[in-house]
Amino acid sequence: MMKYCSQCGAPVVKKIPPGDHLIRHVCNQCEHIHYHNPKIVAGCIPEWENQILLCRRAIEPRVGLWTFPAGFMELGESTEEAAIRETQEEAHAVVKITALYAVLSLPHIGQVYLVFRGRMVAPSYEPGPESLEVRLFPLASIPWDQIAFPVVRETLRRYVEDMASGRFPLHLASLDDSLPSSCVPSG
Amino acid sequence: MMKYCSQCGAPVVKKIPPGDHLIRHVCNQCEHIHYHNPKIVAGCIPEWENQILLCRRAIEPRVGLWTFPAGFMELGESTEEAAIRETQEEAHAVVKITALYAVLSLPHIGQVYLVFRGRMVAPSYEPGPESLEVRLFPLASIPWDQIAFPVVRETLRRYVEDMASGRFPLHLASLDDSLPSSCVPSG
Repeated sequence: MMKYCSQCGAPVVKKIPPGDHLIRHVCNQCEHIHYHNPKIVAGCIPEWENQILLCRRAIEPRVGLWTFPAGFMELGESTEEAAIRETQEEAHAVVKITALYAVLSLPHIGQVYLVFRGRMVAPSYEPGPESLEVRLFPLASIPWDQIAFPVVRETLRRYVEDMASGRFPLHLASLDDSLPSSCVPSG
Repeated sequence: MMKYCSQCGAPVVKKIPPGDHLIRHVCNQCEHIHYHNPKIVAGCIPEWENQILLCRRAIEPRVGLWTFPAGFMELGESTEEAAIRETQEEAHAVVKITALYAVLSLPHIGQVYLVFRGRMVAPSYEPGPESLEVRLFPLASIPWDQIAFPVVRETLRRYVEDMASGRFPLHLASLDDSLPSSCVPSG
């Protein structure tokens, strides 16, 4: 995806730098090596009296489908702050983070989801600019056939199971790319 | 840090794109918006019979000081795979990941440490190219005054406490920049 060196503007080439074992984007002019690393998606399952808050997406990909608040972590914030911010931005809801719920790697798209549980401080919410609609769902009413991304569906599936058992272990997993690519979030 | 657009090679400017609220590197020629996000450092505390495996760094920063195996997660791998790989590369040791131990945000340098506990499959290890020396330490012998980075010291401090109590909750925390900048890992 990188074509030009962000340091000097010369075209980059792909090669394995000395002492490395992976192909990188390298600048032959200024010798800068450009590393590309996975991105963190911070998410939150906002909870209010046995219901969870979901957002219907107003933006591509998967516009019109449901997700919990989640988005790319920014520089200068902690993982918890990122989850709180995404919940504020997408659902205009205020949460207190109670636990890290899941760490889910998506190696095929270079993302790691860190999903937290968050207790809503009030049943107050409305759609932010990236949401068409925000709604509290009892667990029995989750719209399973209208969930935006497989990783969101898988997280919610585990969450409903854990709510039934009353046990909330940390979920550490890697999700593969066996699902249609149209179902995974893009960069 | 970014000077030229990696898509078209034109100089970038810093500005807040429409609909955004943060300053980004933006290309006025091709209109590409360049996002920069925190990086994941995957680490492992390798365990063998009440001892842990530490590496003495052969590379800057903090050459000559001790750390557990840790490094930047690569594209195409899971968080656990990254921790296993770093342990293999830096200490030539093979571990089975047993748990995620800590999620530590370092907002001042845009890093998130994901530290795992790993059971060594054998007491077999030797320095990789980035290590001067690799050694098993009983917890009472950890070289506290020669630890490479504050985040490593803080993780080990919590680990020793947890070993004493026999309880291993997930550690979720944000570490600030109140420590000397020479003590934090660079990109």
